[in-house]
Amino acid sequence: MSSIWGKNVQISIFGESHGKAIGVTINGLQAGFPLDTEEIAKYMARRKASGTLSTPRKEDDLPEIISGVFEGKTTGAPLTAIIYNNNTKSSDYEAIKTLARPGHADYTAFVKYHGANDYRGGGHFSGRLTACIVFAGAVCSQILKSMGIDVSAHIASIGKVNDVPFSLYASDELKVKLSDGFPVINDDVAAPMQEEIANAAADKDSVGGVIECMVSGIRAGIGSPMFDGVENKIASIIFGIPAVKGIEFGLGFAASKLRGSENNDEFSLYNGAIRTNTNNCGGVLGGITNGMPIVFRAAFKPTPSIARLQHTVDVKTNENAVLEIKGRHDPCVVVRAVPVVTAATAIAVLDLLSEI
Amino acid sequence: MSSIWGKNVQISIFGESHGKAIGVTINGLQAGFPLDTEEIAKYMARRKASGTLSTPRKEDDLPEIISGVFEGKTTGAPLTAIIYNNNTKSSDYEAIKTLARPGHADYTAFVKYHGANDYRGGGHFSGRLTACIVFAGAVCSQILKSMGIDVSAHIASIGKVNDVPFSLYASDELKVKLSDGFPVINDDVAAPMQEEIANAAADKDSVGGVIECMVSGIRAGIGSPMFDGVENKIASIIFGIPAVKGIEFGLGFAASKLRGSENNDEFSLYNGAIRTNTNNCGGVLGGITNGMPIVFRAAFKPTPSIARLQHTVDVKTNENAVLEIKGRHDPCVVVRAVPVVTAATAIAVLDLLSEI
Amino acid sequence: MSSIWGKNVQISIFGESHGKAIGVTINGLQAGFPLDTEEIAKYMARRKASGTLSTPRKEDDLPEIISGVFEGKTTGAPLTAIIYNNNTKSSDYEAIKTLARPGHADYTAFVKYHGANDYRGGGHFSGRLTACIVFAGAVCSQILKSMGIDVSAHIASIGKVNDVPFSLYASDELKVKLSDGFPVINDDVAAPMQEEIANAAADKDSVGGVIECMVSGIRAGIGSPMFDGVENKIASIIFGIPAVKGIEFGLGFAASKLRGSENNDEFSLYNGAIRTNTNNCGGVLGGITNGMPIVFRAAFKPTPSIARLQHTVDVKTNENAVLEIKGRHDPCVVVRAVPVVTAATAIAVLDLLSEI
Amino acid sequence: MSSIWGKNVQISIFGESHGKAIGVTINGLQAGFPLDTEEIAKYMARRKASGTLSTPRKEDDLPEIISGVFEGKTTGAPLTAIIYNNNTKSSDYEAIKTLARPGHADYTAFVKYHGANDYRGGGHFSGRLTACIVFAGAVCSQILKSMGIDVSAHIASIGKVNDVPFSLYASDELKVKLSDGFPVINDDVAAPMQEEIANAAADKDSVGGVIECMVSGIRAGIGSPMFDGVENKIASIIFGIPAVKGIEFGLGFAASKLRGSENNDEFSLYNGAIRTNTNNCGGVLGGITNGMPIVFRAAFKPTPSIARLQHTVDVKTNENAVLEIKGRHDPCVVVRAVPVVTAATAIAVLDLLSEI
Repeated sequence: MSSIWGKNVQISIFGESHGKAIGVTINGLQAGFPLDTEEIAKYMARRKASGTLSTPRKEDDLPEIISGVFEGKTTGAPLTAIIYNNNTKSSDYEAIKTLARPGHADYTAFVKYHGANDYRGGGHFSGRLTACIVFAGAVCSQILKSMGIDVSAHIASIGKVNDVPFSLYASDELKVKLSDGFPVINDDVAAPMQEEIANAAADKDSVGGVIECMVSGIRAGIGSPMFDGVENKIASIIFGIPAVKGIEFGLGFAASKLRGSENNDEFSLYNGAIRTNTNNCGGVLGGITNGMPIVFRAAFKPTPSIARLQHTVDVKTNENAVLEIKGRHDPCVVVRAVPVVTAATAIAVLDLLSEI
Repeated sequence: MSSIWGKNVQISIFGESHGKAIGVTINGLQAGFPLDTEEIAKYMARRKASGTLSTPRKEDDLPEIISGVFEGKTTGAPLTAIIYNNNTKSSDYEAIKTLARPGHADYTAFVKYHGANDYRGGGHFSGRLTACIVFAGAVCSQILKSMGIDVSAHIASIGKVNDVPFSLYASDELKVKLSDGFPVINDDVAAPMQEEIANAAADKDSVGGVIECMVSGIRAGIGSPMFDGVENKIASIIFGIPAVKGIEFGLGFAASKLRGSENNDEFSLYNGAIRTNTNNCGGVLGGITNGMPIVFRAAFKPTPSIARLQHTVDVKTNENAVLEIKGRHDPCVVVRAVPVVTAATAIAVLDLLSEI
Repeated sequence: MSSIWGKNVQISIFGESHGKAIGVTINGLQAGFPLDTEEIAKYMARRKASGTLSTPRKEDDLPEIISGVFEGKTTGAPLTAIIYNNNTKSSDYEAIKTLARPGHADYTAFVKYHGANDYRGGGHFSGRLTACIVFAGAVCSQILKSMGIDVSAHIASIGKVNDVPFSLYASDELKVKLSDGFPVINDDVAAPMQEEIANAAADKDSVGGVIECMVSGIRAGIGSPMFDGVENKIASIIFGIPAVKGIEFGLGFAASKLRGSENNDEFSLYNGAIRTNTNNCGGVLGGITNGMPIVFRAAFKPTPSIARLQHTVDVKTNENAVLEIKGRHDPCVVVRAVPVVTAATAIAVLDLLSEI
Repeated sequence: MSSIWGKNVQISIFGESHGKAIGVTINGLQAGFPLDTEEIAKYMARRKASGTLSTPRKEDDLPEIISGVFEGKTTGAPLTAIIYNNNTKSSDYEAIKTLARPGHADYTAFVKYHGANDYRGGGHFSGRLTACIVFAGAVCSQILKSMGIDVSAHIASIGKVNDVPFSLYASDELKVKLSDGFPVINDDVAAPMQEEIANAAADKDSVGGVIECMVSGIRAGIGSPMFDGVENKIASIIFGIPAVKGIEFGLGFAASKLRGSENNDEFSLYNGAIRTNTNNCGGVLGGITNGMPIVFRAAFKPTPSIARLQHTVDVKTNENAVLEIKGRHDPCVVVRAVPVVTAATAIAVLDLLSEI
């Protein structure tokens, strides 16, 4: 079904934005792995940072692990964590519940579920559900780390402000930096990006962006040709993040403008090991890792919830209507989406590694 | 495994480029559907067109249906088609079999399969396997057509030459045109595109491009939130096509540069039906169709096989080497990939439709 | 993974006997179905009845639905229910935690999970987890009932005491009776069965039995040949119930002793409809329902936990040891397993129905 | 879908009895394994032995491997084998094609596939399709053998004639004997069994039987609790064999008559290794192997095709009818089913082993 992902490592996500709780069950984790719950909390805290980089919102929604961990270690049984929904303000949604918000899933959910879906706060479609991905990814990241594999990401762009791309390899310093502040490589772009967001907010508008992710430390030979390749699997989980509208590996769309002689990564020996001088393929050839870092970018559309008046339709009366969305909305989801992208990638990579 | 895709409609692809045969089994087709084999042959012929648009190569590799069809109709049992491999020239590969071709899966396959993979012609990684996707997609397309659903595609760009994008809707004339010639919307770009390819070939080089695909006639409410959405499923099968390095839905990466007020598609009533004035979301909101055409673009890297000398490593001796690829190679796979993209999409859409 | 079952209707079970909670997520339920939670509570109460048919144990472990239900109806999103573990007495297990209980999964879990599994009360292997199956099955049963499909079961035997088998069809009266008391068809066997259990308990021993289950009201044409047939799917979920060691459909093992002329069910017209005079095949031919009730029997081994001294091995010290299991154990799981069998069957049938 | 089985090792079966060919694709095999095709042919030949143990029918239907093997070794890509259908006599079926044969899938297939299924010879439901299972199982058996794992089976009973059960362990001599003649442990029962079959044939009737299967050499810790356990997986594939109506592990149904003290297998140390003195659980506790051989029995109903007149319904005219089945039919499928059972089990065990 839609909310279960994976093959040997599987996550099953449940919950609705304004229901009692959201949560996730992870199947297929190795037994006996010591979980660092403080590290998980830190990982999750990064998702809470507000888009305007003000101090993180005070949320007490720490996940409660209710199974799969015993005496601090994974038991090998399904690991489930619950996050209770507190302080939900459903009244904001009551007024507009039949007005399909442009860019949101209100209308499509209404059609698919014949109006029975929990519309409050977007229900199961809410960005809040990404907290479950982040929790699961935080767990998977720790296991990957124990294998020497790191998943890092930065904001490649917000609106028209661009960060520099990852170099061939990310230094340990950079990895630490990206997990602990405004996640950009070139610090000079932080302020302009924040300004881009602030401007959009001031205009009662929102803005999109791109996140670039790198998986380093993964050996060659992971993945498969055809349909269970690295790109297929990462793409299929990344499109599970709300607002993602595109993904590209290595040079991606830019490669389509190049000649083969410009795009091919030639192989060379470096201290006896095979690697490439460039990484235009993003670490994946024929669906299988080549030993270079996996690199991809995900495009996020601007937050559909904007304060401006918008035209829409009332799905109940089937009449044209004008919508004014109240409440505080994130003018740019990209900043908070960085740990969601790394988390989803960590889940995919651990699943890929569990296949022989 | 890697070569099985789908949930309720499943395809299982087998074969290696220079082995005895390649083929595909389709599970989950409805029973009693009358197949038009001539139409299938025409669909498959489009994949054979040479990259330089010279007359199609004379290939006698028509698929032989060996199960699942009785008295001209699907039986409901698995439908298998085999295409025998004739006229393979494996000797071309013998000389370079341990030299990893840059941009190809030679090295990654060697590592994953410990050197036991059939390296001849790329083996199971060969672009030839896309004939299986095309066959399966041709079958699925006929079933979709009987439901009023059409899947069309055109070359959005080759190298630096761009076609115009799809309009909001594709006319029936355009659909026919795209299935029966050089698949571009603006005929004026055909010659420059072909020149781009010819130039690359003359330079012993290759060139990439982008294919844009549209699914029209699909009703709202198809798909799922999270991981089995329209985007996840289409992406996961499209990345099964060799050389694809990116995919974007609707405005995709361009949406990341926009404001919400620019990107949101407002809902309106048209003759009592809900639709949108723009289709920046590519027909998908929250993983579910909104009744507008599904639109996406796939980026193809330039063919990795180029005639120029390239540096690489001999995986047997673990020494640096120089590689010269002999034989005739397609300087641009994009033209031939158009029916592969529509076929893969048709399979994905039929599978999406089979889920309640 | 091991704790996820199903294709279009999927359940994901989590939790350990002495952890914080157990629970289940159901994916793929139709949206807008009004759930009768009182009926669910009644269904679940049947699992709590003690093996000696004394009054049901006072347990407050009612499931808390935390997602997938809004205003009393299913939303179409994953439906999750949690049952918190209260009053667990883990100390009973502390003393014997390295002594593998014969007939239990202690040893096999220890090996598989390298000793990291939560051994308390059997952890994820505990019969307590069947409460999750019962909850999910109670939900599915209501949906089936709305389609006119009923799943009933009775105790076919306990030890050497046998009930009569189901007739060709179960009356509505019988269905009600079986869901609301000691579930036997012939009331005269109730007392002897209870005596069989009491005798075993008095001997510090346990006893096994057989449960017979009938799915009535299901139309012909449901299921598939080969591996997704009715028998494959029901068997694969029924073996998920602890202590089940066998399953047979229709005459099952008895059919193996017969001649074809004795076992074949001849077709006949009854009021214009095709049915059979006998139902030796248990309603399934070639994996597909034939319109007669589905009938199968599941064999339960005697409870492995018995109060007698038993020989075993200490998995820590790798030495022979003598084990004395303390605490109150059900001398016969069969009585309580009746709703577990019907629940698991209801899940399987709903999943079968969701496939085209 | 119905004709694909497995998770990490997957088989996809296709073909219809009187179509062009049948075949199977195996996904997930390790690369570089040297296949002994002569051994495969021998394995497959055992399935061809006639039920009366006359000389095997002369069939030239050797499988043609068309992918996945290169220079005698598995390549890691999908391995497909095709068996062409020769000498089919479809005319036998023409006369009775609308008369549903009792005990066969004719009627259920007609309903499910709306009459579009290939009815000739049972189509995709035919016992002939088990040749595909045997091929795939022969391949998997060789890989298992290289790991020290053997899968053997014998006829436990035909009609009312019983063989002795497997002892705790099967000797190498017994394993060889069972793979190379009439597969019984006690040679004295061979003649009576053959007589049972001959008598049934003389009476224009058929007879059923039971096959017992043992997997030896498998280490403890393989499998999972809940739904991916050894019993679930073996049951789900074994019910894919036509005519199977029951399966039981260890003592199975007989265990349901016992006390816990009789049925529990006590653990002991043998030369430092943990094992049990008895194997009443059939080598599986909590879905996971305990290091003892896996033992199960599968019940086969008598062949439904019998030469006697039978009552049935004409599905076209919806009228009662009398059916006389012509042609040569196997009066007992059990003898030929022995390698089918071991083959299916080998596939299941290899898949179980591929899960971490």
